[in-house]
Amino acid sequence: MQLINVAILGATGYTGAELIRLLDAHPYFHVSHLGAHSQAGRTLGEVLPGIQEPLARQRLQAADAPLADDIELVFTALPHTAAANAVASALAAGKKVVDLSADFRHQQAATYAEAYGVAHAHPELLAQAVYGLSEWQAAHIAATSLVANPGCYPTSVLLPLIPLLRAAVVDTTQRIIIDAKSGASGAGRTPKTGLLYGEINEGLSAYGLPRHRHAWEMEEWATALGKTAVEVRFVPHILPMTRGMLSTIHLRGHDAGQWRGLLQQAYADAPFVRVLDEGVLPSTKGVAGSNRCDIGLAYGASGRDGLDEVTVISCIDNLLKGASGQAVQNANLMFGFDATTGLPLHAQWP
Amino acid sequence: MQLINVAILGATGYTGAELIRLLDAHPYFHVSHLGAHSQAGRTLGEVLPGIQEPLARQRLQAADAPLADDIELVFTALPHTAAANAVASALAAGKKVVDLSADFRHQQAATYAEAYGVAHAHPELLAQAVYGLSEWQAAHIAATSLVANPGCYPTSVLLPLIPLLRAAVVDTTQRIIIDAKSGASGAGRTPKTGLLYGEINEGLSAYGLPRHRHAWEMEEWATALGKTAVEVRFVPHILPMTRGMLSTIHLRGHDAGQWRGLLQQAYADAPFVRVLDEGVLPSTKGVAGSNRCDIGLAYGASGRDGLDEVTVISCIDNLLKGASGQAVQNANLMFGFDATTGLPLHAQWP
Amino acid sequence: MQLINVAILGATGYTGAELIRLLDAHPYFHVSHLGAHSQAGRTLGEVLPGIQEPLARQRLQAADAPLADDIELVFTALPHTAAANAVASALAAGKKVVDLSADFRHQQAATYAEAYGVAHAHPELLAQAVYGLSEWQAAHIAATSLVANPGCYPTSVLLPLIPLLRAAVVDTTQRIIIDAKSGASGAGRTPKTGLLYGEINEGLSAYGLPRHRHAWEMEEWATALGKTAVEVRFVPHILPMTRGMLSTIHLRGHDAGQWRGLLQQAYADAPFVRVLDEGVLPSTKGVAGSNRCDIGLAYGASGRDGLDEVTVISCIDNLLKGASGQAVQNANLMFGFDATTGLPLHAQWP
Amino acid sequence: MQLINVAILGATGYTGAELIRLLDAHPYFHVSHLGAHSQAGRTLGEVLPGIQEPLARQRLQAADAPLADDIELVFTALPHTAAANAVASALAAGKKVVDLSADFRHQQAATYAEAYGVAHAHPELLAQAVYGLSEWQAAHIAATSLVANPGCYPTSVLLPLIPLLRAAVVDTTQRIIIDAKSGASGAGRTPKTGLLYGEINEGLSAYGLPRHRHAWEMEEWATALGKTAVEVRFVPHILPMTRGMLSTIHLRGHDAGQWRGLLQQAYADAPFVRVLDEGVLPSTKGVAGSNRCDIGLAYGASGRDGLDEVTVISCIDNLLKGASGQAVQNANLMFGFDATTGLPLHAQWP
Repeated sequence: MQLINVAILGATGYTGAELIRLLDAHPYFHVSHLGAHSQAGRTLGEVLPGIQEPLARQRLQAADAPLADDIELVFTALPHTAAANAVASALAAGKKVVDLSADFRHQQAATYAEAYGVAHAHPELLAQAVYGLSEWQAAHIAATSLVANPGCYPTSVLLPLIPLLRAAVVDTTQRIIIDAKSGASGAGRTPKTGLLYGEINEGLSAYGLPRHRHAWEMEEWATALGKTAVEVRFVPHILPMTRGMLSTIHLRGHDAGQWRGLLQQAYADAPFVRVLDEGVLPSTKGVAGSNRCDIGLAYGASGRDGLDEVTVISCIDNLLKGASGQAVQNANLMFGFDATTGLPLHAQWP
Repeated sequence: MQLINVAILGATGYTGAELIRLLDAHPYFHVSHLGAHSQAGRTLGEVLPGIQEPLARQRLQAADAPLADDIELVFTALPHTAAANAVASALAAGKKVVDLSADFRHQQAATYAEAYGVAHAHPELLAQAVYGLSEWQAAHIAATSLVANPGCYPTSVLLPLIPLLRAAVVDTTQRIIIDAKSGASGAGRTPKTGLLYGEINEGLSAYGLPRHRHAWEMEEWATALGKTAVEVRFVPHILPMTRGMLSTIHLRGHDAGQWRGLLQQAYADAPFVRVLDEGVLPSTKGVAGSNRCDIGLAYGASGRDGLDEVTVISCIDNLLKGASGQAVQNANLMFGFDATTGLPLHAQWP
Repeated sequence: MQLINVAILGATGYTGAELIRLLDAHPYFHVSHLGAHSQAGRTLGEVLPGIQEPLARQRLQAADAPLADDIELVFTALPHTAAANAVASALAAGKKVVDLSADFRHQQAATYAEAYGVAHAHPELLAQAVYGLSEWQAAHIAATSLVANPGCYPTSVLLPLIPLLRAAVVDTTQRIIIDAKSGASGAGRTPKTGLLYGEINEGLSAYGLPRHRHAWEMEEWATALGKTAVEVRFVPHILPMTRGMLSTIHLRGHDAGQWRGLLQQAYADAPFVRVLDEGVLPSTKGVAGSNRCDIGLAYGASGRDGLDEVTVISCIDNLLKGASGQAVQNANLMFGFDATTGLPLHAQWP
Repeated sequence: MQLINVAILGATGYTGAELIRLLDAHPYFHVSHLGAHSQAGRTLGEVLPGIQEPLARQRLQAADAPLADDIELVFTALPHTAAANAVASALAAGKKVVDLSADFRHQQAATYAEAYGVAHAHPELLAQAVYGLSEWQAAHIAATSLVANPGCYPTSVLLPLIPLLRAAVVDTTQRIIIDAKSGASGAGRTPKTGLLYGEINEGLSAYGLPRHRHAWEMEEWATALGKTAVEVRFVPHILPMTRGMLSTIHLRGHDAGQWRGLLQQAYADAPFVRVLDEGVLPSTKGVAGSNRCDIGLAYGASGRDGLDEVTVISCIDNLLKGASGQAVQNANLMFGFDATTGLPLHAQWP
């Protein structure tokens, strides 16, 4: 089979690096163009020492360098706004696009403006963008040229939440409390004092309060895909860990005894979602290095008003299922390949 | 001034080690007896390489070795049940005791039996035990011979919660959701596969569900000291960090704008509790190595029923304010010293 | 193509876990038997939470359970001595074997006895064992039924050393000084106090002095494959890192300006060995998650006796090129596959 | 006793932070002035969240703000060159100075220029500077107004080396090989990509080759204080650890059986240097949080030329004995206090 040429724009950040690693091992895609905002002219190996020859000798292009005609697919791993412009160019040139930024995750430009504090650069493209939560949007993804790859936190929250919302077993009269924890790679590769090893190591803190940008994304897609209006109280934390994300969702509802079964049924055919057995709780270590989401449930007592209390916990590798892994999964769907092609099922242990 | 001789029983675990370090630098206490469950006969330096001479040459006694007459104070850092027996002996010999185990934290033997799954070995001593949350029990601590040193999680939760409960601004119709995160030292020094470096590093998981033992302790003392009946949904996590504990308390209530002021007022004279300014959130790194508890508040929107949503976050070093530091603080109170004597106010940074 | 059935004995330690992950993604091998010393009867998922279904449901066999006839290849990841017995059984049953233990790494039973302090259980098999340093033994590996997979430290040392020894540019009148550093996973998965997170994190120390077992292995194979008699001063250290190994080799010799070229030439066709450019030093992060060995050189001044001083530094992932990755590489060679089949070339970054 | 007012210039880097923590707990010194290069105008608490009130409310002064007359002692924790200017001003104003930079560590301006690549800003002050290796320079330190605080690596190397050199048991015909490893805090608090958590965690690499600046310092003072001409081959590494430094010194010499005794005798009265017993090797964890240096020895075989091989390993906390702790120790000596005043003897474990 002829390999499909792909471009990665924003190749030298952490999500770009992970895309390169996955795509170079992919049986059908070929990395033929690497764009980088500020590193143009250097070789890939100079900024990513983990890449082996011959890929390491490939030279980085300017972020706005023209894309060759034989490139069929573009991954944009650029900051928001910059991504929108790159996406517009790529679409205009007839390429398919998976955008890892936030630029096309919202259906309305107004929501985007509220969450990100800037006007959308290309609102005319929003209508054709498909929100790429692979397990729930496979048919739409297969039919579009523009996939908006979900945020890491929303992925970790929507996967456990959607089946429960659809089954109408979750109490949504109050905001749903989501206490999430992320490894430091989620904060990116730009040098800042607060991200130095000396500051992160042995340090744990909440951030992004009172309302993190991903709260809008969670609410929009929990509501749309869960078919129930939902609001969230979302509190993210950063911890001394490179990869990994764990979201603890403190739910109330009814028929708690059926929730595990509901989730298991929803994901029975999903190779990248695993609903754990009774008594087993997920760990980020159980998914690190894999494209999987592990989900565990713990049942508490009933509340005073008779509702059941259920703690639902999900884990992903923020750079895989939370970013570049799901991006490749979506690219697989766009080109008709099996969703698992080129993606790791098992975690790296230890 | 004549130094006060103290014994530490359970000297070679992490809380024992921290007691030794603090007490050897304390101006009024002198470590004259070290008891260790399984290491009797070895020198302290052989099991705690960080201890300098001459203390390192001191030999460990059997846990049940008799205590010399000139010992006035005993710290018991033993497993529960074993602690109760050691406490009974020490009290019988006329010593004052600070017990770091859970054995005397509950007022009723029945609560203890429910939380710990064993019958209490010395229920007759419960009445004289004082729950040693230093900032709220100073007078009682000064007057007793037996202080039950609080658990790490309860300390991190009760300090922010009590003033708010007393002010009756917290909604307690539903269980209070506490999402807590602890460094691995909280799990102790006994070798287990799950505590190996290779398993903990890059790993984050919840544990102790559906109901961790500390939930009983939180409820009992939040109710008693907060003067309001409280129930909790408590979800603890372990993360790759040696020291440090962060509790995220997802509250609802009213008059949220006054909460920070309420807390600042409550702790205006408390050297070890700091209520952070608007816009500042605590980090475990800000308290690691100090006996302090840092508290931050973030205000969300009002809920649909008009109640305010407030995220209260507290951080402690689990081995200091969460264990051995508070134990020394309590010992200071028992002997009439300033509460801060021999205790670090500032964190070690980085 | 018909998949080749393989057995892994010692499936639940760290090298076993890594073998499973690699082999389950391998296009030609199929994991059909999992033996585990002490976990027999449990499912794989119970002891390795990172493994996805259906492999996770596979049940662990006793370490000495009989192997089915259709198994062609056995990986033994057992403690030394136990491994020798399992190897003997597997060979007797006509299987090919890659042994990850130390049992067949020495050509003489006497050397083994000296290094490991026990008599060899099957000295009669030593003659047929091939030392599996893949890059230097490919033809022998392809022709044998028993590969002794090299130790992690020796692999990291022999790869840079052999070409230099063969070129006779290294001064060997004094012992060669090797200062090596390993991540904690190299110490295995058996629970010991010294391997707890609380003891390893923020801790760095040397161990295994005065003479670590791997010193014998390095000397024997540096001499045999480097064609020069060599003795080593080998000082290993353990550091707070899960995976990764870096060996700093403090050499003296002549014609230092040619050394980089000698190494580049020696490994020009070796996909898993990379000799870095002038001015670039390797990092464990550059190889973690890959089967690669990165080698860097730094030239110092000439010594007083006119000899050149060259610091040669090599990095591997101790569980990949240092253990399970090289084991798969050797299995590829034994069955005539390309050496890179099923093995990662790029590191996982970050 | 009247407290002695001190100024800290460069208060917001890691060594400045550690000075503040130590000095605020010191019984005789009072932190009355905090200078910061780029943070002037902010409060200390804004840049160092671990500092408690009231010190946290103290406002940072510009680095060149005038010092009040009542300040007797100045610590300069500024970059080299900037430090020299601040030192000159402070000396001119009649203050005593402990300089933590490299500016006054060399006796000749030419050596400084060679090691640091810039001309010395105040060569006229070199003659009055005393190299502050506390254990060997106590009398000189007590008599000077300007102490050049040693570098971290040189401290860790000189303490074990000097007694052996003085005893003339070390072979110095070849350069002495020093393989050193440092935690990331040694690289400072300035944001750089290579120091991000995501790059340092799980990463180990050598740096500073072919000749790190500290090599000149080691050679100059090993020669001067050891009374033997010495050259070094010095290879430093950085590892995923916040604090801690371990130097492995690969020595050859004679009468190896007496070395431990020589060291024990040399440091019999040194509270901050501990020579470990036979069979015990030091760990960075054994000194982290203390001002101690731990030294271990491992004896190898004799070399082919009959010389003994001895591996000498020393550990310090790079921010304490390697920087701010030794600075306070020196200040104690300058003012006639006991060297241990206000300094931690025991490590923080874990």
